[in-house]
Amino acid sequence: MFIAMNRFKINRGHEADFEAVWRERESFLDGVPGFEQFHLLKGPSSDQFTLYASHSVWRSRSAFEAWTESEAFRKAHTQANPRKGTYIGHPELETFESVL
Amino acid sequence: MFIAMNRFKINRGHEADFEAVWRERESFLDGVPGFEQFHLLKGPSSDQFTLYASHSVWRSRSAFEAWTESEAFRKAHTQANPRKGTYIGHPELETFESVL
Repeated sequence: MFIAMNRFKINRGHEADFEAVWRERESFLDGVPGFEQFHLLKGPSSDQFTLYASHSVWRSRSAFEAWTESEAFRKAHTQANPRKGTYIGHPELETFESVL
Repeated sequence: MFIAMNRFKINRGHEADFEAVWRERESFLDGVPGFEQFHLLKGPSSDQFTLYASHSVWRSRSAFEAWTESEAFRKAHTQANPRKGTYIGHPELETFESVL
């Protein structure tokens, strides 16, 4: 099992906007080879930001990497973005492989 | 869906020891109410450390919290630990709730 998590720091007060953008976008993930599951996760909040993570489960690292080079990926990433001031910094991608 | 991830920074060269400790320990998770799934994940490496995360999926935050106060939790956490020098800093727990 392979998990890709993209971590987003969202300025306090922008949480509802950020969630709405994800709710309204089309993921184009159905039918992508090796794709298993997607969730948008809400993590802990500090005074400054709320941590969110997109959490996708794949059969393997190579299935995930093939998707990042696909037309489905390109289409998913040309959609509307949250408005200015939503993010603190850039999203940080972390990938994990299951060892147990 | 609720996910608890405990993040461990493991000094380079200690990865095999760390994985062996997890492989040999008894989780006592089977049959815990609301527990759904457990994986040990290996994340990215830097020059200094490799990031690991324990990744457990629960029906709800309250199921997870009840487990942390249970006898099963206590028993799971009184087992052997990796030897000195394995960790950089303390593990960091992050919890997430699925919003989509």
